[in-house]
Amino acid sequence: MKKVLAINSGSSTFKYKLFSLPDEKVLAEGMADRVALEGSTFEIKLPDGTKHAEEVPVPDQETAVKLLLDNLKKYNVVEDFSEIVGVGHRIVAGGEEFKDSVLVGEEELKKIFDLTEYAPLHNPAEGRGIQAFMKLLPGVPQVGVFDTAFHQTLDEVHYLYPLPYEFYENYKVRKYGAHGTSVRYVAQRTAELLGKDLKDMKLLVLHLGSGASITAVKNGKSFDTSMGFSPLAGLMMATRSGDVDPSALQFIMEKEHYSMDEMIKVLNKKSGLLGISGVSPDMRDLLQSEKPTADLAIKMFVNSVVKYVGSYIAEMGGVDTIAFTAGIGEHDEGVRASVMKSLEFLGLKPDLEANDKNGEKIITKPDSKITALIVPTDEELMIERDVVRLAHLDK
Amino acid sequence: MKKVLAINSGSSTFKYKLFSLPDEKVLAEGMADRVALEGSTFEIKLPDGTKHAEEVPVPDQETAVKLLLDNLKKYNVVEDFSEIVGVGHRIVAGGEEFKDSVLVGEEELKKIFDLTEYAPLHNPAEGRGIQAFMKLLPGVPQVGVFDTAFHQTLDEVHYLYPLPYEFYENYKVRKYGAHGTSVRYVAQRTAELLGKDLKDMKLLVLHLGSGASITAVKNGKSFDTSMGFSPLAGLMMATRSGDVDPSALQFIMEKEHYSMDEMIKVLNKKSGLLGISGVSPDMRDLLQSEKPTADLAIKMFVNSVVKYVGSYIAEMGGVDTIAFTAGIGEHDEGVRASVMKSLEFLGLKPDLEANDKNGEKIITKPDSKITALIVPTDEELMIERDVVRLAHLDK
Repeated sequence: MKKVLAINSGSSTFKYKLFSLPDEKVLAEGMADRVALEGSTFEIKLPDGTKHAEEVPVPDQETAVKLLLDNLKKYNVVEDFSEIVGVGHRIVAGGEEFKDSVLVGEEELKKIFDLTEYAPLHNPAEGRGIQAFMKLLPGVPQVGVFDTAFHQTLDEVHYLYPLPYEFYENYKVRKYGAHGTSVRYVAQRTAELLGKDLKDMKLLVLHLGSGASITAVKNGKSFDTSMGFSPLAGLMMATRSGDVDPSALQFIMEKEHYSMDEMIKVLNKKSGLLGISGVSPDMRDLLQSEKPTADLAIKMFVNSVVKYVGSYIAEMGGVDTIAFTAGIGEHDEGVRASVMKSLEFLGLKPDLEANDKNGEKIITKPDSKITALIVPTDEELMIERDVVRLAHLDK
Repeated sequence: MKKVLAINSGSSTFKYKLFSLPDEKVLAEGMADRVALEGSTFEIKLPDGTKHAEEVPVPDQETAVKLLLDNLKKYNVVEDFSEIVGVGHRIVAGGEEFKDSVLVGEEELKKIFDLTEYAPLHNPAEGRGIQAFMKLLPGVPQVGVFDTAFHQTLDEVHYLYPLPYEFYENYKVRKYGAHGTSVRYVAQRTAELLGKDLKDMKLLVLHLGSGASITAVKNGKSFDTSMGFSPLAGLMMATRSGDVDPSALQFIMEKEHYSMDEMIKVLNKKSGLLGISGVSPDMRDLLQSEKPTADLAIKMFVNSVVKYVGSYIAEMGGVDTIAFTAGIGEHDEGVRASVMKSLEFLGLKPDLEANDKNGEKIITKPDSKITALIVPTDEELMIERDVVRLAHLDK
């Protein structure tokens, strides 16, 4: 049986999922955690529900790949490594180089490393993951799947910042967006669920997780998206601020004697839901909390979603479909209800009974002018499908 | 005849307008330019069209006030200074202290100086202007009219940034907005023109000048506004960037070896229409230019307007009226037409013939679901009215 691996390497994590072909069943999944750190672990979960975890040194990506391959054999998920016919890798930064997923050879690998300054913690780890597979499974197609690629269809009017133009020419400072693989999956799945052609739709994908973004998908293409040069921009998030007046940062930096790097760290790690609530970055904790700032944080989050939804509806000249996905989008009926309520003036009619339960479905009434849905995202499945498509495994 | 002065002091300019009561006619207007700089001038324009300008040392605000009073006598605009029954002063930063215009005594004056760090170039000059009038026209009511006051009705959900809450508690870092006096005038005038009560309206005021902002006015109150902690935030402007991903700034600062102060200077002075076009900060020059970047800059400007319009429509749950004002808003039929076109999906029907000519009027068709208007702003008139109101000059 042919099998495909989907790999998602972070700076210190190495997540994987093994799919069978052509039925796309998950045969194993898990992760190496604390890669290159003290106290690293490796874990594998099997379809029967069993889970094996061990504390083991994982000094680098190559060790993680070795551990993965050993475990796949050990637990009889794979008999022979020749069964693994392709490996897909999530890559954070694709710059302007990568407008689609791609088969990775030496040239593409070099480009991935060259883009390091656009994702300093991610691209090198992801590149090393590919190198390890090239070494340990020689000849097996490696496919790069970029968070940014789907958004390469943005027009310059949407991707440029109103800065001196030379910053774009010299340093490629522009909006790249993120969550592209998730958005692409959710967009396709949404069209499938509605029996529509994505090319005829004006769709908003609300990827609301601890990282959160909204993408306007017009005629099947990414038209605008709320994350920017980096994933810090746009919506309020779990610990990230989203958009802030730069002068406010200058003011805080003077008061706190912060360097720009320290300021950016605060914006990434100590802001958003956590910063306002003082309670937690996790929406579920805020819902339990009785602190007024927890409620305030939720309201501010919803408001930032509503503002971006409104701005993209105006940009597209309307909207027919809204898809909620990721942690909050899939599991927080309150946030979904609030966002839907804000669009009642456009003829959206929420089906609050349907909305009250999670799971893939439509959550507006049949006569609603805008259809809203919950569509659980699956980036790994999208990665697997890109491997099949680009390595021609379906032939 | 009773007369009221409206004063608008910048860091190096001192603009004035003298109104008669109760007919609100402009009896004289002009400015001292390059205050405290080499080559300073004083100028007065009279209702008959004559204009007198002289090169004269203006080392400080007090000299400017003396020159003004001398000129008013010299050109027979005022016979006796007792005719001047009130002076209104535009103040940039009112912080959370000033929620309306106010009669300025020693206590209020101290507060204006105390707010200096929120408008370092403006508040001290404006405070010194008030001091000069207190000295030279003792006993005459001085009224402070704050750019920020109208926006003090914003809810905390709208005025807080998703930053650690302590930055608000400790340093009052929040959204203050600007253009409040202009927006208040335009909002009142719009309601008057439509014969409506502002309390029943969902209105957007598009103050599009070299500084540009959009304010959502709901039930007569400022509900949300695009400028933020400072006037740098929000829309793309003549030379200001508006919103930018903070990580993009960090990236540029590293490449260019900028300090934060240098970066902020670039965002204020070299960005926006000028930065993108490389041609000019002035929309009129861009319309004449054949450089593709001039056209790009216009498109990006319109797009930033459309995005904020859309976000505030969603926040308010709809809109019934849109008022265009300030340089671009009053004089650029192309920008107005583009913004209106983007709202056709909401039932806005532009009257392009009416729109083609400037001047105060409705520019949508009678059956349009949203009414759009051109409403020339008049901050000085609003200042004069605040003086009349607060000094009880109508009694």
